[in-house]
Amino acid sequence: MKSYFRPEIDQMSGYVPGEQPRMANLIKLNTNENPYAPSPRVAEVLAGFDSAGLRRYPDPLATELRDEIAARFGIRRENVIAGNGSDDILTMTFRAFTDANHPAACLEPSYSLYPELAKMQAARMIRIALDPEDFSMPADLLEQAREANLLIITRPNAPTGNSFPLAFMREICANFDGVVLFDEAYADFADDNCMAFATEFDNVIVSRTFSKSYALAGIRLGFAVGARPLIDGLFKLKDSYNLDRLTQLIGRAAFSDQAYLAKCCAEIRENRSRLAAALAKIGFRVVPSQTNFLFAAPPDGDGQNYFRKLRENAVVVRYFPGDITGRFVRITIGTSAENERLLELTRSFYTNAR
Amino acid sequence: MKSYFRPEIDQMSGYVPGEQPRMANLIKLNTNENPYAPSPRVAEVLAGFDSAGLRRYPDPLATELRDEIAARFGIRRENVIAGNGSDDILTMTFRAFTDANHPAACLEPSYSLYPELAKMQAARMIRIALDPEDFSMPADLLEQAREANLLIITRPNAPTGNSFPLAFMREICANFDGVVLFDEAYADFADDNCMAFATEFDNVIVSRTFSKSYALAGIRLGFAVGARPLIDGLFKLKDSYNLDRLTQLIGRAAFSDQAYLAKCCAEIRENRSRLAAALAKIGFRVVPSQTNFLFAAPPDGDGQNYFRKLRENAVVVRYFPGDITGRFVRITIGTSAENERLLELTRSFYTNAR
Repeated sequence: MKSYFRPEIDQMSGYVPGEQPRMANLIKLNTNENPYAPSPRVAEVLAGFDSAGLRRYPDPLATELRDEIAARFGIRRENVIAGNGSDDILTMTFRAFTDANHPAACLEPSYSLYPELAKMQAARMIRIALDPEDFSMPADLLEQAREANLLIITRPNAPTGNSFPLAFMREICANFDGVVLFDEAYADFADDNCMAFATEFDNVIVSRTFSKSYALAGIRLGFAVGARPLIDGLFKLKDSYNLDRLTQLIGRAAFSDQAYLAKCCAEIRENRSRLAAALAKIGFRVVPSQTNFLFAAPPDGDGQNYFRKLRENAVVVRYFPGDITGRFVRITIGTSAENERLLELTRSFYTNAR
Repeated sequence: MKSYFRPEIDQMSGYVPGEQPRMANLIKLNTNENPYAPSPRVAEVLAGFDSAGLRRYPDPLATELRDEIAARFGIRRENVIAGNGSDDILTMTFRAFTDANHPAACLEPSYSLYPELAKMQAARMIRIALDPEDFSMPADLLEQAREANLLIITRPNAPTGNSFPLAFMREICANFDGVVLFDEAYADFADDNCMAFATEFDNVIVSRTFSKSYALAGIRLGFAVGARPLIDGLFKLKDSYNLDRLTQLIGRAAFSDQAYLAKCCAEIRENRSRLAAALAKIGFRVVPSQTNFLFAAPPDGDGQNYFRKLRENAVVVRYFPGDITGRFVRITIGTSAENERLLELTRSFYTNAR
């Protein structure tokens, strides 16, 4: 049968998001959602919302939200664009800077959506392998990325959870010839971030999401910060009304509650330390995490088997096939009770076997 | 200063959506929003919503919503894709079927977003001029569109408001070599539609929106129906979680209330007839409308002047510059009171002058 699609699309298999299983009593630690509810201000804003207003289009420029984000980071509205999740930001970025003549570069392993976005643009994707031992960056990263017009640095990285030295990030910004996008989906759980580079350099974009630290994966909200010419150009690629009315309102309510954000993130970081130590004690290799998840290899290095056994016991984590990633699973930091249940199962799997 | 963007993006000026003015006591008849509130079921679903659930990602496949849409049209879930507004559907469609080697074709005048979407893809856009007298299609439309891989037919058309004979639409589906997208944003206000073609032919997509007839421009929801290979391919291009939790819930609530939809649309159609007749009586040329708006030319053929005078009196309609479109303004059908105020002003502008 004839295909009507562009050949690049026919060749794609398509990105597969982490499953959203519908089992009862499931412990869901597979898509890095926040174990806590969003700020109570979200419920307040929803309770006071008049649904009649939904007949109107939302503000296509998300003006108030961008003003509030700008104020917090000490920048201007013109340096901020908001997206329907940070996936929307990534889509705009790939459409802006990549095509058959403008390759992209990303880390390997990293977020598996990037290569799919490159394929949609018929753009070559240069994959820069991280050290298989500690997932650190190669010293010649800039050399490897030389031909790319867009370099994506996921920091902290997913699925590995580790971060990269800030001084090297600055060196990359200063010396890379194209645009550097720091995908900072997990930055609120980290010790430092690259936000300052977004306005210090003219070729840097930093993207953030409300999905993880703000516990708002369900509303789809992300944003990016950068020099005005970069943000102006991304606006041309934005769907006119990409953010609905409720997303804008709810996002603003959550963003206004920075105390709640700090409290949630502190708890998750504390639970992260505790879970990492406990897994290490069972004999796991745990990558030092700056995120709300752990990338952890069971003692026998069989990530798939561990994933399967957890799943049989209604605990869902994420497994990434591959020579290196297949030794690990990615475990979202849950509530203390959820983490405890994971540990209890894990001990039962591995303690006798040793 | 160096630009980092693809040259096509640099050359774009960007689509400008209809303004969302923030004047008090404004009568807003410029973006074809519904003058009525959405179904009362929307308020119910919002009142019963537990915001804690927002920490979870939404269903990436919008399964229930697609099932309900499929049931209503007597098709299968696999024939339906949902988008963050029908703009999202259009974006996916252009990315799927157009690039530098795969041109698109659309009507002229029509929705001015299409040429922008083609530019983003570096795709040539073939513009098929409608008859400047009655905005009917040229008989040689298929010949003009011959080189295109994607033909967009806006039916009923915007901003002109008229429709095109169903028999000719069928002929186009059967004989066009690429994909035909019927953009049916206004179909719920029309006497007939092309939905049946979406599953009868293997090269037809029909897109719909919740923004107009369902009075839900604020939630951003659209959908498309087509043969399974077309829908499968569009899914590869969809942002994984393009529809947030609230949009899916609210959309389903509104969609379940077909009686409310029918009542709203009937009232708008009735008000449309009344407003069209009244404008004609003042000497306006009014294009026969199958939508929730009128494309109407004042007696002096100076659309911009009429637009300006209305705006000075806090009534906002939409003006499209151009040799042909500039004679008209596009007026959204409002409530009876809003339409009456528009008529009162219009009479005051033109009755003395004649």
